[in-house]
Amino acid sequence: MTHPWWLDACQPLDLDAMDQARARQQQLTKPAGSLGQLEPLAVLLAGLQGRERPRLEQVWISIFAGDHGVVEEGISAYPQAVTGQMLRNFVGGGAAISVLARQLDATLDVVDLGTIDPALELPGVRHLRLGAGTSNLARQPAMSQEQLHEALQGGRDSALRAVEQGAQLFIGGEMGIGNTTAAAALASALLDCPPSALSGPGTGLDSAGVRHKAQVIERALALHGVEADDPLHALGCVGGFEIAALAGAYLACAQQGVPVLVDGFICSVAALVAVRLNPAARPWLLFAHQGAEPGHQAVLAALEAEPLLALGLRLGEGSGAALAVPLLRLACALHGQMATFAEAAVADRPA
Amino acid sequence: MTHPWWLDACQPLDLDAMDQARARQQQLTKPAGSLGQLEPLAVLLAGLQGRERPRLEQVWISIFAGDHGVVEEGISAYPQAVTGQMLRNFVGGGAAISVLARQLDATLDVVDLGTIDPALELPGVRHLRLGAGTSNLARQPAMSQEQLHEALQGGRDSALRAVEQGAQLFIGGEMGIGNTTAAAALASALLDCPPSALSGPGTGLDSAGVRHKAQVIERALALHGVEADDPLHALGCVGGFEIAALAGAYLACAQQGVPVLVDGFICSVAALVAVRLNPAARPWLLFAHQGAEPGHQAVLAALEAEPLLALGLRLGEGSGAALAVPLLRLACALHGQMATFAEAAVADRPA
Repeated sequence: MTHPWWLDACQPLDLDAMDQARARQQQLTKPAGSLGQLEPLAVLLAGLQGRERPRLEQVWISIFAGDHGVVEEGISAYPQAVTGQMLRNFVGGGAAISVLARQLDATLDVVDLGTIDPALELPGVRHLRLGAGTSNLARQPAMSQEQLHEALQGGRDSALRAVEQGAQLFIGGEMGIGNTTAAAALASALLDCPPSALSGPGTGLDSAGVRHKAQVIERALALHGVEADDPLHALGCVGGFEIAALAGAYLACAQQGVPVLVDGFICSVAALVAVRLNPAARPWLLFAHQGAEPGHQAVLAALEAEPLLALGLRLGEGSGAALAVPLLRLACALHGQMATFAEAAVADRPA
Repeated sequence: MTHPWWLDACQPLDLDAMDQARARQQQLTKPAGSLGQLEPLAVLLAGLQGRERPRLEQVWISIFAGDHGVVEEGISAYPQAVTGQMLRNFVGGGAAISVLARQLDATLDVVDLGTIDPALELPGVRHLRLGAGTSNLARQPAMSQEQLHEALQGGRDSALRAVEQGAQLFIGGEMGIGNTTAAAALASALLDCPPSALSGPGTGLDSAGVRHKAQVIERALALHGVEADDPLHALGCVGGFEIAALAGAYLACAQQGVPVLVDGFICSVAALVAVRLNPAARPWLLFAHQGAEPGHQAVLAALEAEPLLALGLRLGEGSGAALAVPLLRLACALHGQMATFAEAAVADRPA
């Protein structure tokens, strides 16, 4: 593959729209800067959407699920069967992200990349069947080249569906018992940082469990010889189907011109992979929150991300990103609907 | 006045509803604790509303406005005339809080306690006309005993209107050029903390302006001999009409059993006054955000508050509280609508 799709150009920001939005912000009836992070957010969204007054009615949420062979190393508090059970819960309406999607009037797209039950067939779920979960990354590469490319393409396909539906914001979520281990391994490789600094309790390990998890990752990194300057190799060796799909989706969104709201630790690691593969994708990624998983902060720092929320979340499913959507919408409403000093006949401060 | 109304009992929390809500949280299809701050928030709202599954459809926002004589000391970047101009903007729909109230489908109640224009008459604004702004607190008490009691009662009346309309959440906002000076003076008195540590730029002072503001406050505190153990005296000497109204509203909400979402620095100082007057009001106060004004953190710490947002806001008007409303609503939706492990046939982790 001489020029894979993910190296294609990303959309540029509309600098004129950003200038207009910045000028508008200065005219609104409030002290300059008093809306804090919401002001640059509105200006950035203007640049991404190419209009002075951005809008976020159409929100698309894709949940990518996949199982992880590394669970056999005892790195998770839950059994792998939960991944498939939660897929049913996503489409059944009872999961956190199902509730949030309803409240936000967002489209929920549920993609099964490959769980331990290859016969799983759930109405409303897209089953891509890349395999019965990944291989155990502590003993062999998590996926083959073919699986890796299919997972990236699976994410891209979701982004293209979002574009077709007119999505103004893309959220990726993930479900996969064991995936904080894969994400911590990837982050360790890409940030050249010891696994012990990036490993956390995930869904609920105790401190001995976290130490064991870091050791498993350390062995895996040594086994595969992954390097920070080869993100694709690292993704294939120690990643996961859903993490690759997220990276593919983020890259396709940047190429198609759809702003992305990145969720927690695992999604941020996928964002790091995406940006390492194609740095021009970076401006399209907004970061929703600083989660509870200890590795998240290092990944956000490497991406120079300024997340909107810090609520101690560690659920995944895209839930943290969904929780931040109202802030984005309200930032757009304030930017678009507030009166200017002239319109409201309010005295601006003396220059 | 042997027993003023604000010393009356506050509503107790419903501990049974909190137990039920806590038990429900443990059964929802997510790792325990993975929704971070939103979990104890839902449990607290259950206790405040007296039902296992709290709801926040009806949100009431009262904006209290008043002018400040201390502006003649040169402690604000804007002229006092802006207070009245912004009152017009609130009811005209162009202010930040007007936009937010529309988006949240909240009732907006606008109360003018007393601005420099005593003839101001705006449709949709309640004019209480306590005076043409407060007196200059650097030279004399900001208000008389009578004005103080009327301002507290003005806030209480708003809370009673909210109750009558079935409000499930009360937000107080404020507008008053010069009111970060009054708030910093009050906080200095009640926290026994030097004014220089609690004075900030407000709507936009430079560093020389901030130093001057701290000196003005220092003089005022010395002049009035205010003490931490007499919050009512401090409120009358160095407070403001709108700050007293906020304190009165918060106290009445706690007595009536309506949860309050407290906005930024000035509202948090009013909350501190309320809790010092009647400590049983404390559980009824939720804190929306950590704002940009430097004194805010100290006031939040004194109240043992854990705000939901930290977006660098410094607008006032109740805008930060309004921005946090969707988080409260989504916390309630998640708590009320997520499936339990049993309902969704998802395996809980081994105990």
